[in-house]
Amino acid sequence: MEREAALSLVKVQLTEHRYLHTIGVMETAITLAKRFGADDKKAETAAIFHDYAKFRPKDEMKSIIVEQGFPVDLLDYNAELWHAPVGAFLAKTEAGIEDKEVLDAIRFHTSGRPEMALLEKIIYLADYIEPGRHFPGVEDVRKLAEEDLDQALLQAIQNTIFFLMKKKQPVYPETFNAYNDLSQKIGGLTK
Amino acid sequence: MEREAALSLVKVQLTEHRYLHTIGVMETAITLAKRFGADDKKAETAAIFHDYAKFRPKDEMKSIIVEQGFPVDLLDYNAELWHAPVGAFLAKTEAGIEDKEVLDAIRFHTSGRPEMALLEKIIYLADYIEPGRHFPGVEDVRKLAEEDLDQALLQAIQNTIFFLMKKKQPVYPETFNAYNDLSQKIGGLTK
Repeated sequence: MEREAALSLVKVQLTEHRYLHTIGVMETAITLAKRFGADDKKAETAAIFHDYAKFRPKDEMKSIIVEQGFPVDLLDYNAELWHAPVGAFLAKTEAGIEDKEVLDAIRFHTSGRPEMALLEKIIYLADYIEPGRHFPGVEDVRKLAEEDLDQALLQAIQNTIFFLMKKKQPVYPETFNAYNDLSQKIGGLTK
Repeated sequence: MEREAALSLVKVQLTEHRYLHTIGVMETAITLAKRFGADDKKAETAAIFHDYAKFRPKDEMKSIIVEQGFPVDLLDYNAELWHAPVGAFLAKTEAGIEDKEVLDAIRFHTSGRPEMALLEKIIYLADYIEPGRHFPGVEDVRKLAEEDLDQALLQAIQNTIFFLMKKKQPVYPETFNAYNDLSQKIGGLTK
């Protein structure tokens, strides 16, 4: 889909603030795709649609998760997770996006998962470091993302887990699994 | 088993430093058991034997984990986890301890797990806060343990996860599950 057509579909779904965030994710995702050898057109599309479902009513999101066979344990965790799989579904059914890599990048951009594909990593990370993001630790991740996608992703996931745990909130197990997967591949396992 | 008989069985398995730690865990576990309504004699026995297998050769621990049907994914994670289930097995086979509550408290004293029993919580926590322990955060957990067993346990498990993640080390999934279980029961779940 052409960029302007995609953006116009998304803009009406979002607040102004969230639309500007989406533009930031798009630009960052394209940069990361070129840097790390991913398809930058797919990165653009996934980025544009990553928050497509962000402002759908919770009841609609719940219904889609159940009816479409997404893991129902999502409903036991923070509702912030729900818009990602629901967004993948709606990007397909409402916007006609069929590319599975793009849809998976939308689907897993909030939870992460083990064995993430290159495009999934790029969208997760772009969402975390786009220029509109300002929170403790983001600058460290931006620096890592200049050179090493997996190190940057590991740091971003770790920061996310710390953020939730400091508030004593539950963490979706697939996010833990994403951390463990990356840390076992690139971190310091000592036996 | 009488305390002195149990201690003499354990002492020959441990270094001086680890034996003194064990005494600290024993005294702390008895205090916690009385405070939170557990069987203080069971707490004493579990505490005495909690590190029984600490210095067994890794190959022996691996064999026992495989042969006794303990989860073999333990072998993919830090070897510090192994002595706990192996200790439960050896406390039974070498020291004749049959009480399942005691054996489970030994077995899960390092990893934790969801739905921990009262005695399991007490041994996990006593191991963390006994007077010989000196590390950042332990004093906060000691204070919590004066009033609220679950809050103290949640904080101890969180500290343990943070400690590993700051080193980018993998975290055994049951430890994450223990955190999620407690945080969902007593923490701040927001949907």
